[in-house]
Amino acid sequence: MHVNGRAYRTVWLAGNSVCLIDQNRLPFEFRILECPTCRDTCAAIRTMVVRGAGAIGAAAGFAMAQGFLEASEDRFEADVAAARAAIEATRPTAQNLFFATARVHAAALAAADPRTAAVAEARRLADLDAECSRRIGEHGAALIHEGAGVATHCNAGSLAFVDHGTALAPLYAAHAAGRRFRVYVDETRPRGQGARLTAWELTQAGIDHLIVPDNAMAALMSDGLIDLMIVGADRIACSGDVANKIGTLEKALVAHALGVPFYVAAPVATIDPTCPDGHAIPIETRPGEEVLYQTGRTPDGRIETVLVANPGSPALNPAFDVTPARLLRGLITEHGIFPATPEAIAALLARGA
Amino acid sequence: MHVNGRAYRTVWLAGNSVCLIDQNRLPFEFRILECPTCRDTCAAIRTMVVRGAGAIGAAAGFAMAQGFLEASEDRFEADVAAARAAIEATRPTAQNLFFATARVHAAALAAADPRTAAVAEARRLADLDAECSRRIGEHGAALIHEGAGVATHCNAGSLAFVDHGTALAPLYAAHAAGRRFRVYVDETRPRGQGARLTAWELTQAGIDHLIVPDNAMAALMSDGLIDLMIVGADRIACSGDVANKIGTLEKALVAHALGVPFYVAAPVATIDPTCPDGHAIPIETRPGEEVLYQTGRTPDGRIETVLVANPGSPALNPAFDVTPARLLRGLITEHGIFPATPEAIAALLARGA
Repeated sequence: MHVNGRAYRTVWLAGNSVCLIDQNRLPFEFRILECPTCRDTCAAIRTMVVRGAGAIGAAAGFAMAQGFLEASEDRFEADVAAARAAIEATRPTAQNLFFATARVHAAALAAADPRTAAVAEARRLADLDAECSRRIGEHGAALIHEGAGVATHCNAGSLAFVDHGTALAPLYAAHAAGRRFRVYVDETRPRGQGARLTAWELTQAGIDHLIVPDNAMAALMSDGLIDLMIVGADRIACSGDVANKIGTLEKALVAHALGVPFYVAAPVATIDPTCPDGHAIPIETRPGEEVLYQTGRTPDGRIETVLVANPGSPALNPAFDVTPARLLRGLITEHGIFPATPEAIAALLARGA
Repeated sequence: MHVNGRAYRTVWLAGNSVCLIDQNRLPFEFRILECPTCRDTCAAIRTMVVRGAGAIGAAAGFAMAQGFLEASEDRFEADVAAARAAIEATRPTAQNLFFATARVHAAALAAADPRTAAVAEARRLADLDAECSRRIGEHGAALIHEGAGVATHCNAGSLAFVDHGTALAPLYAAHAAGRRFRVYVDETRPRGQGARLTAWELTQAGIDHLIVPDNAMAALMSDGLIDLMIVGADRIACSGDVANKIGTLEKALVAHALGVPFYVAAPVATIDPTCPDGHAIPIETRPGEEVLYQTGRTPDGRIETVLVANPGSPALNPAFDVTPARLLRGLITEHGIFPATPEAIAALLARGA
């Protein structure tokens, strides 16, 4: 992605440090956070400095490499196992995290020089993530017609992956091909990834967009403004059920009822081969404070956190939900667009990530 | 309603002034705004110091009475007509507003002393609103079982009417009868009437509740936490279609798809006898700034407005949507619970408001 004319990835390794675009500071400030240790990278994942399926995966892969680099000679395997456990305790839902730690761990242990191999495998996974996203964009661009209204939820753009993104990748490809269309970006309460991150990305790319309240999507679809909706995924079960940001199930039900095609864009790395269906996907509940408080910029440029709810009322904050496969028109993957069926998922897993 | 142990209505007439609970200051500050003139009351309606179908209606009725009180002897009818036009230009969607101005206008013109008659009719309409709400509560309470999970959207409570409310009235009646249940209060972005006003009301009443993101409703229904959902209405067409706060259509579609009974609670005054169906209901679009900015309380007690979206991105802010009658399990009215059918609507209109 280009920020102020310069190419960036969301996450990369510089020396032994993991570098991350600080997504808690966006859209008000563009800043790179350097994580010199595995522990720092874990903290960045946990506090959502980095978020989004692929970006979490790449950061976790680099964190696993840091775990190898930091492991002592005399307790090598135990230190590496502890690092992996710490990484895997940061966020429970994103499949890409577990995919990355397992791949880096396995590749390193199979090599003569585990440290060098871990770094190489983590870099390879980050490159693969960017390449898969680019190909998702190529395949998905065919769905974006001239003059289309396209809805998306949360942020499954460049910031959610190493580059390009998944749900937004087809938009970037269609835009690069000269097509004009409008993107309806829902806010994605409680953390506002749509209003903050997707809107920021689309602004950087010069793509026409409108921020809309999460509540407005059904009305916009009913009014005929939305031709299709594309979202990302945090984990896809073998049944084709998809875990994604809270609200995805709601938008998918609404789109289905109103006849709007609803697509999930994700690389094969997001499919969990051990997960039979949506019921088996663990759903993270985050603190109620994320609902009750909002952080933003005051007119004089300070960042303030304000209480936006009745003082003393408690909140419930499920971070993800599960959308059943039957509500999906298709999965946009690096290998093409497929129906969300067990057969198609099995074939995708056979082709590999 | 009781606030700090004292009984209040949302809107009342004191001398020639309309007094209003300032809903823009809640939940952080409880303050009464006094509107000495019709112009002040219009401004209060437009800026949403008072909002909610019945409260807007009562305020509009009192404003119409102020219009009569303020009309000059030599231009009486023209002044009254100008006052009515100004009131009816404040908010376009709430049927109760037009119901109230028409009733007060007609009652006053039919009387020997129009000024006294206008005040009397406006007071009668406010009393009627409170009484209708009380009866909606009595009828609807039968739906609230011990241990139920009840969802609501926006604020259709005491604050949205003169007293008791509509969607919340059955909860107040069931609570008074000693039943225990839990209310899932969605935030209702962009203005947060759920998180701010409904949560405030339920706290005053001592009713168990949780604030949830608007995006979470489908997930909570899918998880079996919601036994029924009750919302209010800003206008009901003769077909049974309902205009209500943006997001109502979304929740109704989701509830329908997931088998959760969805009720609209409203007095007959909310039915527009001149409106054949939902397509004919005018929908207010409000400024995009309401989506982009959030007002809240800082930790040190100041009220601040902060930008919560990407700087420079535009927003679309439709304030209401239309829910088709087929998605409703029933209408909870002052005359009982009825299906949302043209026949039932016609019978309700025949019984009168």
